[in-house]
Amino acid sequence: MHCGKCCNLNAMKKFIHFSIASILLFMAMAMTVQKKQRILFFGDSITQMGVNPGGYITRMNEALKKRGLAWQYELVGAGIGGNKVYDLYLRMDSDVLAKEPDVVVIWVGVNDVWHKASFGTGTDPDKFEKFYTAIIKKLQAKGIKVFLTTPATIGERTDFSNPQDGDLNYYANIIRRLAKTNNCGLIDLRKTFLDYNLQHNPENKESGILTTDRVHLNDAGNSLVADEMLKAVTGK
Amino acid sequence: MHCGKCCNLNAMKKFIHFSIASILLFMAMAMTVQKKQRILFFGDSITQMGVNPGGYITRMNEALKKRGLAWQYELVGAGIGGNKVYDLYLRMDSDVLAKEPDVVVIWVGVNDVWHKASFGTGTDPDKFEKFYTAIIKKLQAKGIKVFLTTPATIGERTDFSNPQDGDLNYYANIIRRLAKTNNCGLIDLRKTFLDYNLQHNPENKESGILTTDRVHLNDAGNSLVADEMLKAVTGK
Amino acid sequence: MHCGKCCNLNAMKKFIHFSIASILLFMAMAMTVQKKQRILFFGDSITQMGVNPGGYITRMNEALKKRGLAWQYELVGAGIGGNKVYDLYLRMDSDVLAKEPDVVVIWVGVNDVWHKASFGTGTDPDKFEKFYTAIIKKLQAKGIKVFLTTPATIGERTDFSNPQDGDLNYYANIIRRLAKTNNCGLIDLRKTFLDYNLQHNPENKESGILTTDRVHLNDAGNSLVADEMLKAVTGK
Amino acid sequence: MHCGKCCNLNAMKKFIHFSIASILLFMAMAMTVQKKQRILFFGDSITQMGVNPGGYITRMNEALKKRGLAWQYELVGAGIGGNKVYDLYLRMDSDVLAKEPDVVVIWVGVNDVWHKASFGTGTDPDKFEKFYTAIIKKLQAKGIKVFLTTPATIGERTDFSNPQDGDLNYYANIIRRLAKTNNCGLIDLRKTFLDYNLQHNPENKESGILTTDRVHLNDAGNSLVADEMLKAVTGK
Repeated sequence: MHCGKCCNLNAMKKFIHFSIASILLFMAMAMTVQKKQRILFFGDSITQMGVNPGGYITRMNEALKKRGLAWQYELVGAGIGGNKVYDLYLRMDSDVLAKEPDVVVIWVGVNDVWHKASFGTGTDPDKFEKFYTAIIKKLQAKGIKVFLTTPATIGERTDFSNPQDGDLNYYANIIRRLAKTNNCGLIDLRKTFLDYNLQHNPENKESGILTTDRVHLNDAGNSLVADEMLKAVTGK
Repeated sequence: MHCGKCCNLNAMKKFIHFSIASILLFMAMAMTVQKKQRILFFGDSITQMGVNPGGYITRMNEALKKRGLAWQYELVGAGIGGNKVYDLYLRMDSDVLAKEPDVVVIWVGVNDVWHKASFGTGTDPDKFEKFYTAIIKKLQAKGIKVFLTTPATIGERTDFSNPQDGDLNYYANIIRRLAKTNNCGLIDLRKTFLDYNLQHNPENKESGILTTDRVHLNDAGNSLVADEMLKAVTGK
Repeated sequence: MHCGKCCNLNAMKKFIHFSIASILLFMAMAMTVQKKQRILFFGDSITQMGVNPGGYITRMNEALKKRGLAWQYELVGAGIGGNKVYDLYLRMDSDVLAKEPDVVVIWVGVNDVWHKASFGTGTDPDKFEKFYTAIIKKLQAKGIKVFLTTPATIGERTDFSNPQDGDLNYYANIIRRLAKTNNCGLIDLRKTFLDYNLQHNPENKESGILTTDRVHLNDAGNSLVADEMLKAVTGK
Repeated sequence: MHCGKCCNLNAMKKFIHFSIASILLFMAMAMTVQKKQRILFFGDSITQMGVNPGGYITRMNEALKKRGLAWQYELVGAGIGGNKVYDLYLRMDSDVLAKEPDVVVIWVGVNDVWHKASFGTGTDPDKFEKFYTAIIKKLQAKGIKVFLTTPATIGERTDFSNPQDGDLNYYANIIRRLAKTNNCGLIDLRKTFLDYNLQHNPENKESGILTTDRVHLNDAGNSLVADEMLKAVTGK
């Protein structure tokens, strides 16, 4: 014979338990919300265009929404046209560290190679490695997870007859080595783009497959990059 | 009714006064010694060679000794061959700020211009200005007095027919403007060298007047630079 | 004892003399007409644009008409955009010799200097001199009178701070020497343009005084070049 | 009634016939000797070094002797250091046509590509093709058989990470196309060298396999080139 009080007490207990659970759940959710991963994309004009409609960062956002993962990630674009590796280094504090990202995806190198021929102001490979290393060290010292991206293309011909292919391959090798040495993630777009072109560029065209102008991404290019990047940073 | 004690006291007082004065004097001297001005020369191979026997920094030290001013100044060389403005920026913390100089003399620009033609890896003028400004700001934020030096020469012909003359004049103009804008001292070696060559290079030779190889200083060059720098940094 | 016959004979003689003189005069005039001097302008895009309305060759034609000298000269444009000295050499036979000019005005050099920085495909100074000499020799071997023109400008700043000023001055010196060595006429546009800018470009602008874009001629530029060229080739 | 004289006459006749036949035979042999094929090697420093002891032309001569074919071929070196395609064109008359070769092997392209980066004075691909075509046409117009050689290497790394690989592949493609279009023989050293390195350069070294310095041939290089060239020009 349970008396009303007991029931009352039990009910109250249940209510309290429920309330606490609710609060805890709410707190957990709040914490989860607060813990949205901030991923910053640090690069040149290709990344600057990445936040445009149809751009690779925009597409990643859309893909995250579709998959119901939008609440987990915040994507931040930090690309500036014409940037070389030392330009990234110069603006790290204001444009990266100040934004307290959890993850930084570095994508640089095209201008370091290209500007040799077009302006005489490219970057020597040893300096490229030095500045790149300095950036990685500074990010890792703040506990930021770092991904390195190889420069995709200056010309889409698949027989390595694009004028900058030799240098791009060389700088891509530097980046691959840096990723290994510094325990960074690697997004090997140079390889991805070549593989794609070997399949989809039978006429050995200079552009129009993944780029509009040998360098900047067309729709297919933005889509391919979004896929690769998403795989890398979400791990799936 | 002066007692001996009083006399004693007075004597003691005097002694104490004298002692304190002595100590203060000693401290003052000690502080002066401690306040030896540390002047750091921040640059490329020309500055790296400046600390060699006969180099311009070595000559400044010798001149200071002759004038009995050696106890006032400590000269520190911080030149590395092949450095461009962004290389200086990258190694500021370790090579300059860590040495706590009172004065920094920046001399850079030859490689920023020269490497355009020789390696395709010079520095764009807008980037040159940006990095140079960043260096000045960082030094001045620490209360360091900053002197800027214009690039002297890549070729000593006086009719502006040395291949890099146009760019050197342009970058020298940037540096002159930066000195004005940022309240830095200016050591205008480009002007000094041209004036000297107009007097001493009647055959319009490429090198051999102030340089061994169009760029690096011979004895006359080191001597001229030592004079100009000494005038600037000691103010006499 | 003069007989009638004699008079008749004398009259006849006179008539014949007069007739012959008339015929000779007519022939001389005819030959003069036939001997209209053909002046060919051999160069790059600046010369290619010279035959456009308002172009320097068009203006020369107009000036000749005004002065009543149009019947004496035939002006032929032979400029092709992007040409360097060796391009001129390659197309001499078809574009110059085949047209049997009496006078050739060579104006080349801007691309030989400029393409170093913009494409890495400029012309070494020793090769520049070699090809230029080969062109002169080939023209002179055909009895053609040759005028050499110095490259006017890549940038109109008057303090020799245009990036290519050093090289332009150097290549202009080569051309001046070639004119002297090979007994060619010299049209020293580099000097003419600098003198004009020293008077009319007080703000030290890069372009807009004699050029539209640092290189190609605006109205004032075309007018100045037409004047200088006309003075040189007509000798007045 | 045959008299001795007749016999004598017949004998004499025979003797004379035999003598004439002998002379004709001798003359025929002499003419054959005179018809030794003159093969001229037209190129840059690699070819200039080819006539040195151990050089590829010297080795070809030695191989011909060994095979007893020396009497059939005369090999002439016509290489000059630093030559680009337009330098070959400029000196064709004096250095090639004047020597009346039966066969010309053209090997050029390394400097056209290399000098872009090292001096800013390489050759644009369209100009490269234009001058190359003009050389071929001029040789073929004289009935000379022409072989084209692709530029072998500027760096022996096999993963296309030598800085000039892109351009070298591109210019090699131009040459392959020119050989086809103009019915010239092709000696595809670029392919030969790559194939050799894929087998013998497992460490992906820059030089030391077939070159001393990434460009100029070592013993193995000279030997490989001699083999390839001999196969091509003798047809065996």
